[in-house]
Amino acid sequence: MTYTEPTVEQIDEILQKAWKAFHVYRKLPLGSRAEFMRAIATEIEALGDELLKVANEETNLPDPRLRGERTRTIFQLNSYADIAEGGQLLDARIDTGMPDRNPPKPDLRKMLVPLGPIVVYGASNFPFAFSTAGGDVACAFAAGCPVIVKAHSAHRKTGKLVATAIMRAAMKCNMPDGIFANVETSSHDIGKALVQHTHTKAVGFTGSFFGGKALYDWANQRKEPIPVFAEMGSINPVFLMPEKIKESAADVAKLYAGSITQSVGQFCTNPGLLIGVEGEGLQTFIDTLGEEIRKVNPGTMLHPGIFKSYVENRANALAQEEVVTVAVSETEPQLNQGAPTVASASGQAFLNNPVLHREVFGPYSLVVRCKNLNEMLEVVTKLEGQLTATMMATVNDVTRNEDIKEAIKNICGRFIINGVPTGVEVCMSMQHGGPYPATTDSRFTSVGADGIKRFARPLSFQNWADELLPDELKNGNPLGIWRTVNNELTKRPI
Amino acid sequence: MTYTEPTVEQIDEILQKAWKAFHVYRKLPLGSRAEFMRAIATEIEALGDELLKVANEETNLPDPRLRGERTRTIFQLNSYADIAEGGQLLDARIDTGMPDRNPPKPDLRKMLVPLGPIVVYGASNFPFAFSTAGGDVACAFAAGCPVIVKAHSAHRKTGKLVATAIMRAAMKCNMPDGIFANVETSSHDIGKALVQHTHTKAVGFTGSFFGGKALYDWANQRKEPIPVFAEMGSINPVFLMPEKIKESAADVAKLYAGSITQSVGQFCTNPGLLIGVEGEGLQTFIDTLGEEIRKVNPGTMLHPGIFKSYVENRANALAQEEVVTVAVSETEPQLNQGAPTVASASGQAFLNNPVLHREVFGPYSLVVRCKNLNEMLEVVTKLEGQLTATMMATVNDVTRNEDIKEAIKNICGRFIINGVPTGVEVCMSMQHGGPYPATTDSRFTSVGADGIKRFARPLSFQNWADELLPDELKNGNPLGIWRTVNNELTKRPI
Repeated sequence: MTYTEPTVEQIDEILQKAWKAFHVYRKLPLGSRAEFMRAIATEIEALGDELLKVANEETNLPDPRLRGERTRTIFQLNSYADIAEGGQLLDARIDTGMPDRNPPKPDLRKMLVPLGPIVVYGASNFPFAFSTAGGDVACAFAAGCPVIVKAHSAHRKTGKLVATAIMRAAMKCNMPDGIFANVETSSHDIGKALVQHTHTKAVGFTGSFFGGKALYDWANQRKEPIPVFAEMGSINPVFLMPEKIKESAADVAKLYAGSITQSVGQFCTNPGLLIGVEGEGLQTFIDTLGEEIRKVNPGTMLHPGIFKSYVENRANALAQEEVVTVAVSETEPQLNQGAPTVASASGQAFLNNPVLHREVFGPYSLVVRCKNLNEMLEVVTKLEGQLTATMMATVNDVTRNEDIKEAIKNICGRFIINGVPTGVEVCMSMQHGGPYPATTDSRFTSVGADGIKRFARPLSFQNWADELLPDELKNGNPLGIWRTVNNELTKRPI
Repeated sequence: MTYTEPTVEQIDEILQKAWKAFHVYRKLPLGSRAEFMRAIATEIEALGDELLKVANEETNLPDPRLRGERTRTIFQLNSYADIAEGGQLLDARIDTGMPDRNPPKPDLRKMLVPLGPIVVYGASNFPFAFSTAGGDVACAFAAGCPVIVKAHSAHRKTGKLVATAIMRAAMKCNMPDGIFANVETSSHDIGKALVQHTHTKAVGFTGSFFGGKALYDWANQRKEPIPVFAEMGSINPVFLMPEKIKESAADVAKLYAGSITQSVGQFCTNPGLLIGVEGEGLQTFIDTLGEEIRKVNPGTMLHPGIFKSYVENRANALAQEEVVTVAVSETEPQLNQGAPTVASASGQAFLNNPVLHREVFGPYSLVVRCKNLNEMLEVVTKLEGQLTATMMATVNDVTRNEDIKEAIKNICGRFIINGVPTGVEVCMSMQHGGPYPATTDSRFTSVGADGIKRFARPLSFQNWADELLPDELKNGNPLGIWRTVNNELTKRPI
């Protein structure tokens, strides 16, 4: 159900309903949760081209991109449903008792149980995959939690359509009233009320640093603090190692021109920082990147607010001391179009100026010219936490620069070699997270089924008779799930 | 190394050293970390009876209790070492690439890596198991993190002795300088400096609500907020169900008299709240419990501060409206001895008075007399988060009161049937945690090897050549660990 500009009293009603729904939904078997998620996927598909049309009007994202994102969203729902139903992510642990030990060893059995109603803030740049039925929502449903989505105001109509799909699926699967709500609000106070309501038990967010940090602070100021997983973006440094750049500066530049400008640079994994060592290779890289960037046409950004920020932040970055503009798209941008831009600065300038460490959300990237590899190492160690980091490197580059490689490992959630950070594969081994300020908790991910664990907690049962235990923990292992029994992973019954 | 009353500058030195040590220690193989932990266990054992003597002088805990706790501490170190070395807790995930897919699917491989230097606050009530080489420290070392212990001021000598054992083990195992530091301080500012130093990456704490909450707030106020796992105690409600109490009120009372008064009630799992339904059975329970409590001798508490708090908090609880003192130990307490005490109040009085929900740390318990099972359900739903909750119940009691059982599940980390909450078994299926205010994050535990995950984060490697990957993620699986390969748990090589 969609609530448009609700009052604080209505927020209370929404959360009261969600709380009631929680106590029904959390008891449903894994299979029912999975069935519900699959039904949502089916209903989204059933919305057909109308959904794409509305989303295109609201976000300016082109049809192929939106089709791809819809496929991804459906895949997230279906694959998280499968994995959750398989039970491995419940982290079931069993230690059988020893009644004859002195003192007797109790029988203990542990599994993850859901936290409660989850508030999810939709992201502007992914109207499907990180919004109303996106990854956070899929994770929360898989964990056993009702969801309240705070719709992103830049694509309310899209959100409302997806919300109808979720509600249809909920009805078809006999889900409890209150399992889902879609809240449209432009009020700061209502957003705060959502996070601070006593029945809200966790928050998922994808967006800006300032937005995420505000939610995090609100959550910590509650009488009962709750976890917030806020993915707040990153500049995704790319390290251009000497041998690699010597061998293929132009190819790397072309690859990166594509990554920087893809979807008008509106990805949290956009490579905003390219770090190399002064020399012929780097110069070729910069020249080629400049040529490529000049050729890329500006694209219309998601909404006027993002466009405005892009223009301001880019201007601010370019106005910094010792920053040189390398190239700007040669095509005159139309209304709300972001012009691809590349700038450059010395390693020292970058080290001395924290402004240059800030994300410029859009098709912008800064090339940092270090005077040598020691300075590159210094740059790595001074960098803040990142979602991703990339080495463009030969095997020699890696083995000769172990210190740089190890320092990079320590600041990122995903470490790429010879590729681009854009493109976040949905699979179990994806980590879409990273040390602060990339996220508020580096121990979790928002992409991949492990994201479910943000919304669940372990519960131990001590000395319960087999027939009173949840199926997941019964001796016979009726669900056939993986469990750690007396320290050994097994599917065997006890 | 032990630092006594260090300055803020020395704290900086300590953390700088720990940070350097981190970059060596995190690269060591799992086996080296395990070897170091086992060496600590050996060195603690080698301290012999001297350690017990010093601990007894400082804590007043009797020799058998201290021997048991030492055994437990050694077991923690050895068993977490074994489990960590086994690799299952790295949550290794591999998704092999599909270069021919359009777009190509990258090869992604994920595992947990350590966070960085961890600050551990020792607990007063467990001078070994939750202190200098206790569970938090074992988890941090197992995760790959250096540790700085803030020694509890009530047992500094004990802490210093254990610290020497750790340093000896570190030397024997060639651990990097800075892998461990023991800080003795009585300064609030120094405690804050430890938590707020830029190189501190997480905090472990066991103690009071006020202590834990202060650390949590300091950590959140940092420029880079860090996770704090604070276990802040609980009143561990016990639900005395009608059929069970009708059948065996006296036996249950005797069992609980033991649990309430064990170690002078100085356990975070001490049952501070017993909830039954008015009637003959509950009266028998109260009478028997009273008789038993009168017979138990007061014991000397850990330190004068804890004794003082016990006396004040108990007096405050007993002074509340409608609270009746049921029984107090008949033996006159000596200096710093806590007298076992049981009081009683009606369900309504409990529901209306938040003071009665507060922990009285020591041998004190409140019996709540509900007028019926509906009121008991209301009491459950009004209770704050708890480390444990217990049902004393027949099978009929459970099946007839599904609503109460389900409501209890929702507020606790460990759910016991027909036992006592005291006694926290060290094993993988233990959950020593629970919803706030029992802890600051219900998604983690401080007992059991899963506690390692508090101090680690996932890192994904994308498209790395086999020889450049960590052993844990190499195709051949040279360490023979469990990994989730293309969604399937296996030890097979790829």
